[in-house]
Amino acid sequence: MALPAEARALLTAPNFAFVATLQPDGSPQTSIVWVKSDEEAVYFSTLKDRRKYANLARDPRVSLIVQDPEDPQRYVEVRGRAALSDDPERTLIEELALAYTGKPFRQEAPDKVRVIVRVVPEKVVHYAGPGQVRHLS
Amino acid sequence: MALPAEARALLTAPNFAFVATLQPDGSPQTSIVWVKSDEEAVYFSTLKDRRKYANLARDPRVSLIVQDPEDPQRYVEVRGRAALSDDPERTLIEELALAYTGKPFRQEAPDKVRVIVRVVPEKVVHYAGPGQVRHLS
Repeated sequence: MALPAEARALLTAPNFAFVATLQPDGSPQTSIVWVKSDEEAVYFSTLKDRRKYANLARDPRVSLIVQDPEDPQRYVEVRGRAALSDDPERTLIEELALAYTGKPFRQEAPDKVRVIVRVVPEKVVHYAGPGQVRHLS
Repeated sequence: MALPAEARALLTAPNFAFVATLQPDGSPQTSIVWVKSDEEAVYFSTLKDRRKYANLARDPRVSLIVQDPEDPQRYVEVRGRAALSDDPERTLIEELALAYTGKPFRQEAPDKVRVIVRVVPEKVVHYAGPGQVRHLS
């Protein structure tokens, strides 16, 4: 499915995303990431030694939320599956750092391996306040 | 376990919390709530017809994050189990509305049943930026 325009708008602006993955015992784990999107997916960067990498490599099911900073009652949830690919050139984290901070990303130890997480949406929910829930897909 | 002071500070201020619960198929679902805390638990309000109520009634495992508005690199994650209790007097949602908006909560249809979700922490993680992850419990 394509990402609906309302989701794209929130995911393209430099808003933080709150991501949930699944621990080995199936319980949820949450963290905060920078994101970008195109018409087909949401993307964020992580490291191979992070908990969410291990979680997604084992079980790709993921949910993420972006809140509208202008109207905190409004948010979009994207549920889907993550595809992981190495990012040896660190292109995604540098692109996101520039978008979110205006600066290059910090130095990282050379043994830190960057990974691109591509979240392919299966369900998108737009929540616009009391009782205003719309399933966009 | 008691909630560590650093978690209490972020959970006591009127910051939004991002909550992950588990769908019937075990995949994660995320939403945004108002929260409060005491030394032993984190509390939020929901309705019996909400997805997260159904999810928590079936599987109480939950994770929530609060981000530090002054320093977005900093956040606390609380993982634990939810205990649900009816809130016919709507005390919690009214208390939270006052804390977050300064006003009473909106009117709701009488058939909407409010529920108090009490999250008893099992694991608390304090994330303060690159490589600064501390497991507070």
